Amino acid sequence: MARADFPFPVKALVAELKRLPGIGPRSAERMAVWLLQNKKAEPLALAEAVIKAKEGIIECPICGFFATPESCGICSDPKRDEALLCVVEQATDVLPLERSGAFKGRYHCLGGKLSPLDRVSPEDLRIPELIRRVEASNGSVEVILALGADVEGEATSNYLADMLRGKSTKVTRIAQGLPAGGGLEHADELTLIRAMQGRRDF
Amino acid sequence: MARADFPFPVKALVAELKRLPGIGPRSAERMAVWLLQNKKAEPLALAEAVIKAKEGIIECPICGFFATPESCGICSDPKRDEALLCVVEQATDVLPLERSGAFKGRYHCLGGKLSPLDRVSPEDLRIPELIRRVEASNGSVEVILALGADVEGEATSNYLADMLRGKSTKVTRIAQGLPAGGGLEHADELTLIRAMQGRRDF
Repeated sequence: MARADFPFPVKALVAELKRLPGIGPRSAERMAVWLLQNKKAEPLALAEAVIKAKEGIIECPICGFFATPESCGICSDPKRDEALLCVVEQATDVLPLERSGAFKGRYHCLGGKLSPLDRVSPEDLRIPELIRRVEASNGSVEVILALGADVEGEATSNYLADMLRGKSTKVTRIAQGLPAGGGLEHADELTLIRAMQGRRDF
Repeated sequence: MARADFPFPVKALVAELKRLPGIGPRSAERMAVWLLQNKKAEPLALAEAVIKAKEGIIECPICGFFATPESCGICSDPKRDEALLCVVEQATDVLPLERSGAFKGRYHCLGGKLSPLDRVSPEDLRIPELIRRVEASNGSVEVILALGADVEGEATSNYLADMLRGKSTKVTRIAQGLPAGGGLEHADELTLIRAMQGRRDF
C-alpha cells in the first residue's frame, strides 16, 4: 500500500507557494488547500493577477520605481519639485515616504545598498544612473540621501556623498534621532548619540 | 501632486495575495514585490501551478479526498483494507494519519463538522454519502470515527454513531488521552478524565 499524499498538481502548487518569502511548508499547504477548497477562493483571479503584474510592470528606467511601459507615476507627475531628488535603497522605500507626505520631489531607487559580504558593489546598484542624473541637472538639484541607518546604509551614504562631492550639487541626508512616540528608555545608545549630535534650536 | 503608489497591476496582485489565509497587507506587499523583483522568483510558474491545480484537481466522489479526474490515489489502491473505513472531518486530516502509518484502510472525508452556530447541518456534510457507503458494505466494514476532540467534533461523532446504530456495522472511535511526549502537568482536566476512562490492561 502506498501512503496517500496530495495528487501531483497540489504538491506542485505547495512547492511554488513555499518559495514565497516568509512562507513555510505548513502555510504553503494551508494556502493551497484554501485555494482549492474554500468557496471564497478565486485561484484563477490570483493566477491572472500574477501574470498581469509580471507582464505589465517594469522598473522605471529613470527613477527605478515600479512603472508601466507607458509611464511612471512619479517621473511623469509635473507637480513634483524637480529641485529635490531623494535617493532610497529599494523601490518599496518610496511608499512610506509618499504616505508620510513629507516629500514632494522626485526619487532615485538604487536597488539595494553596498554590501561587500553579499558581493554588492557600486556597479550592481543604480549609482551610475544617479551620477548621470545629477550631472544633467547642472547643480540645480538637492540630493537627499534617505538610506537606512544600518552599517551598509551608512557606507552607501558615505560612498554616494564622496561621488557627488565634485558635482557642485547640494547633498543632504535625512535626520537620525528619537523615533516619534519613543521614550529615551527604549532608545539604544547610538540613536541617542545621533539624536544629541543632530540637536536643533527650539 | 498625487501621492505615488504601486501601479494598478501591482495593487491588484497585492489584493489577491491578501485574500490568502494568514496573509496580512504587509506580507501580501512583500510577496508581490518579491515576485516582481527577486531574481529567484518565478511568478509565471506560480500562476501555472495555481491554474493546473485548480483545473486538474477534483474532490473524489467516493472518499472526498483530493483526486484527479482519472483516479483517486486512495480509492484506487487495491492494497488497502476494505473492511476499515476511517471518517475524518477534512480532506487534509487524511495526511497526518497516512504519515503516521497507523491506518491502512479507506477514508471518508465529511468536509467539515456539525456546527449550529456556523449553520453547518448534516446535509451540508458528506453524511448521506457515508450512510450509503456503509449500507452498501452489508455490515462488513468497521467505521472508525476519527473526528476532533472539540465540542463540534464530539457532537458530529455522536450524531454519526446514532445514524449508524441500526446498520449492523461496527462503529469505533480513536482514543483520547495523553499526547505522546506530554507530561501530566501539561494535560488539561478533560484530557486526564478521558485518559483515565480509556485506561487499558498493561
